[in-house]
Amino acid sequence: MSRMSDTWILAAQCPSRLGTVDVVTRFLKEQQCYITELNSFDDRLGGRFFIRAEFRPELDGFHEESFQADFAARAGEFDMQFELTAPGKRTGTVILVSKADHCLNDLLYRYRTGQLPLDIKAVISNHPDLEPLATWHGLPYHYLPISPETKLQQEAQVREIIADTDAELVVLARYMQVLSPSMCELLAGRAINIHHSLLPGFKGAKPYHQAYEKGVKLVGATAHYINNDLDEGPIIAQGVEPVDHTHYPEDLVAKGRDIECLTLARAISYHLERRVFFYAGRTVVFSN
Amino acid sequence: MSRMSDTWILAAQCPSRLGTVDVVTRFLKEQQCYITELNSFDDRLGGRFFIRAEFRPELDGFHEESFQADFAARAGEFDMQFELTAPGKRTGTVILVSKADHCLNDLLYRYRTGQLPLDIKAVISNHPDLEPLATWHGLPYHYLPISPETKLQQEAQVREIIADTDAELVVLARYMQVLSPSMCELLAGRAINIHHSLLPGFKGAKPYHQAYEKGVKLVGATAHYINNDLDEGPIIAQGVEPVDHTHYPEDLVAKGRDIECLTLARAISYHLERRVFFYAGRTVVFSN
Amino acid sequence: MSRMSDTWILAAQCPSRLGTVDVVTRFLKEQQCYITELNSFDDRLGGRFFIRAEFRPELDGFHEESFQADFAARAGEFDMQFELTAPGKRTGTVILVSKADHCLNDLLYRYRTGQLPLDIKAVISNHPDLEPLATWHGLPYHYLPISPETKLQQEAQVREIIADTDAELVVLARYMQVLSPSMCELLAGRAINIHHSLLPGFKGAKPYHQAYEKGVKLVGATAHYINNDLDEGPIIAQGVEPVDHTHYPEDLVAKGRDIECLTLARAISYHLERRVFFYAGRTVVFSN
Amino acid sequence: MSRMSDTWILAAQCPSRLGTVDVVTRFLKEQQCYITELNSFDDRLGGRFFIRAEFRPELDGFHEESFQADFAARAGEFDMQFELTAPGKRTGTVILVSKADHCLNDLLYRYRTGQLPLDIKAVISNHPDLEPLATWHGLPYHYLPISPETKLQQEAQVREIIADTDAELVVLARYMQVLSPSMCELLAGRAINIHHSLLPGFKGAKPYHQAYEKGVKLVGATAHYINNDLDEGPIIAQGVEPVDHTHYPEDLVAKGRDIECLTLARAISYHLERRVFFYAGRTVVFSN
Repeated sequence: MSRMSDTWILAAQCPSRLGTVDVVTRFLKEQQCYITELNSFDDRLGGRFFIRAEFRPELDGFHEESFQADFAARAGEFDMQFELTAPGKRTGTVILVSKADHCLNDLLYRYRTGQLPLDIKAVISNHPDLEPLATWHGLPYHYLPISPETKLQQEAQVREIIADTDAELVVLARYMQVLSPSMCELLAGRAINIHHSLLPGFKGAKPYHQAYEKGVKLVGATAHYINNDLDEGPIIAQGVEPVDHTHYPEDLVAKGRDIECLTLARAISYHLERRVFFYAGRTVVFSN
Repeated sequence: MSRMSDTWILAAQCPSRLGTVDVVTRFLKEQQCYITELNSFDDRLGGRFFIRAEFRPELDGFHEESFQADFAARAGEFDMQFELTAPGKRTGTVILVSKADHCLNDLLYRYRTGQLPLDIKAVISNHPDLEPLATWHGLPYHYLPISPETKLQQEAQVREIIADTDAELVVLARYMQVLSPSMCELLAGRAINIHHSLLPGFKGAKPYHQAYEKGVKLVGATAHYINNDLDEGPIIAQGVEPVDHTHYPEDLVAKGRDIECLTLARAISYHLERRVFFYAGRTVVFSN
Repeated sequence: MSRMSDTWILAAQCPSRLGTVDVVTRFLKEQQCYITELNSFDDRLGGRFFIRAEFRPELDGFHEESFQADFAARAGEFDMQFELTAPGKRTGTVILVSKADHCLNDLLYRYRTGQLPLDIKAVISNHPDLEPLATWHGLPYHYLPISPETKLQQEAQVREIIADTDAELVVLARYMQVLSPSMCELLAGRAINIHHSLLPGFKGAKPYHQAYEKGVKLVGATAHYINNDLDEGPIIAQGVEPVDHTHYPEDLVAKGRDIECLTLARAISYHLERRVFFYAGRTVVFSN
Repeated sequence: MSRMSDTWILAAQCPSRLGTVDVVTRFLKEQQCYITELNSFDDRLGGRFFIRAEFRPELDGFHEESFQADFAARAGEFDMQFELTAPGKRTGTVILVSKADHCLNDLLYRYRTGQLPLDIKAVISNHPDLEPLATWHGLPYHYLPISPETKLQQEAQVREIIADTDAELVVLARYMQVLSPSMCELLAGRAINIHHSLLPGFKGAKPYHQAYEKGVKLVGATAHYINNDLDEGPIIAQGVEPVDHTHYPEDLVAKGRDIECLTLARAISYHLERRVFFYAGRTVVFSN
């Protein structure tokens, strides 16, 4: 994380083809950019190439826009999508919650202390409960109740807040509502959900109760991009915790909270550091 | 494990009722038996009580049979099932395998070095491949090929070997055949299978291919008692290993081998040390 | 944790001797107390016996004082020290901090949500920085600066607050001051410190810098009771996190924060649930 | 591992300087080599650059020698040391053991099944015990007893076997002898030892007894390159396992065996796949 404060990040993907690395690294060299960390991967089953470089301009006068334009000219030949991220960038973010506060509390701590370079624009909830927590952190809190009748209308309000605040990232920090297909489409690749199980093990409601019934010896959490298929989005991070027979369902719920917080925070961190690539329903994550 | 060489183990279960602990501990005291480790648990949802004591007779002349008879008289009142296990007992065991040898190799090493107090009676396989490994360890190897037509007949042969050798435990160390319902019933609570995934996530065939498709970041293994519901038996132990996008299905298979070996060995160890209680489709495991 | 809300806990220790379990379990039976969870252990090297029982009185009219008095009469014969803890007991606690806020933030969250049944009496710091955090949780904050000249005087003030508030537990949540021998003696077995390394690997100052120099692949944290030997007290809990060469010292510091929070919270939880026994410089922990 | 069967590996290091990535990636492009996986890292504290590329020649007629010669011409300018590894290369290896067989058993299994692409030239021991195990795997076993008087002479014999067999790698699989300084120097960066603790926590003899005394809740193992400073060599991999008060020293020894095997195997695998860079007493490991 500390590295983000003084290095640029270039992340790109394109169809597999000879020269995909060279087009990136040669350009960086020509621009007098020193690469401090580099990862590339070729998915031979998907025929897709992914690359991520952290770099430092060696000369004064690095121009973001001309870099973008000049690299776009090169990348076009490879059908390469890329994103350039400036040092210290704080990503505009909207957080959705319901009543459970453990993930929100954890995220706001990491936000407040700069561990996660977020620029939180708003906290939105279908319940009023977590307003004091948001307020203490100086964040606007939007209480948007929801009922079967008002669901679409409420979602429109959420969408408006996202649009108005120019938020790039949406975090569902234990938001207990299913998003509509159009919302999922709008937020493809930029909305991260935390599911309280090791997907695809326990989909749907009350996964910890299911886990208890099965007598599992491990519980876990999965952070993923949302998609239309509820609890089936591309996985970014997973965590796990040992349990035993003394854990009744309510104990599993309690036990799961820590691993949910950690897994969500890790996924967000990977996303912000441009370590996550999203393609054809799967992810490539250059984790560290 | 080392403790097993000089302590007796008393393991029991019965319906929940006041006095269930006392009936065990008072008897041990009266018999001048010193308890070195004790665990009990009351499952309040199932209304079932479980207890396990490791103990050392303080006086010479401990008589196993009179202990059994005298305790049975007390336990009867509580409808208590119990099992007394002598120090250093080696459990008669039959191992079933197919072609994959990693679990067998691991078990035979632990058998040979005394880490697992097994008395292996036979290794049975539907393939000839692993005979040299068994033979090197001085174990009889039964090659019993199987085809759709001979399935029941082959199973009868397996059953006969189990009966002839008085084997108490059957280990399915990557045995790639589904057992018949009658076989499952016969072996209820005494046949341990290793499934190469974190159940109930990836049932059925090729779980690592499924895991790859989902882009999971953790793979695992589950050791369980077999039952009629394939890959759904009561869970004894689970293990997990981190993976990433560079792991193609064949890499996940390789990565999974270690965790399969360890998880199976751990489950067998718990079973042999009478740490596992089996009741109503679930397990209570006093692990250590 | 949830179990604590409706069960009593009896925890005891004494020299090893036949009958130590029986004296506890027979008494509970006689008092019509149903044992829901029981653990005992005999340390054969130390010749010491430890037992912990969770139980529920079956009859109305359970009298704490008469239970205590009656059991003391029995326990005396065995030289047994014991402690009876009521359901839902919240332990009076004082927290010491310096400038780092991650452990305090985590503890206050668990306090506020009832995950840790603490009754926090005061937060004391040698710096003013964390006052807003304490205040938001409605807790008194004592800013007691320290200098080489005022060290003993400051410690006397801390001692006074502990005495005045009748605090049973003291938590050093990244308090960067060495306590005096007399303070350590006063707080023996009731002051928990979090050390940011896997003791005894990296004692003293800047353990993460030491870890970086060694090129370790795992960093960890150790929660322990304080004693005169700085960073050497009896260990209650340890946690670990994988790291690699990309982690400079400041990254290790950041990476370590989560595991410090979790390890400290776990140790406090074990302490509050009377799972930790302290004897002859070592601990016995009936963890779950 | 499977990837090694059809890709080449180029691993290199040099002082930090603009263009270090480009000199590698441009050359691979010119040679029509497709990079399937690439990692580079710049150690800003050490001022050192490390890079590893897996690649596949796209054209027929890849000539190893001309590749080496041509790349050397380019690399010279950057003072770059590099190593080119052919697909499916099996590394000539000598294994040193004493009496404990768990690591040897594990390594020979991975060798026999091709999981570790080793070409084991000899097993050398100062005890005769493990000869049957080596023999069953068809490997020469050299029993070279050692005494204070014959130590240097025995070491000369070991050295001769290494030289005669052209072994590139030496594995100390629980070899309980300290190597002489000249031997350490000879084997710098190519002899891997497994130490049965989390270094630097418990150096020297009987680390599990030390761990018991401290009451640790985690035990571990460290695989490292040997150097003159016993148990202080550059760390390649570490593993960890939870333990509790029921583990007496001999139980910790037993518990540690699995993690020793796994950690040693992982370190060897990283070494063989050229994922480990050794510089200035530290390692950079591009693990996966």
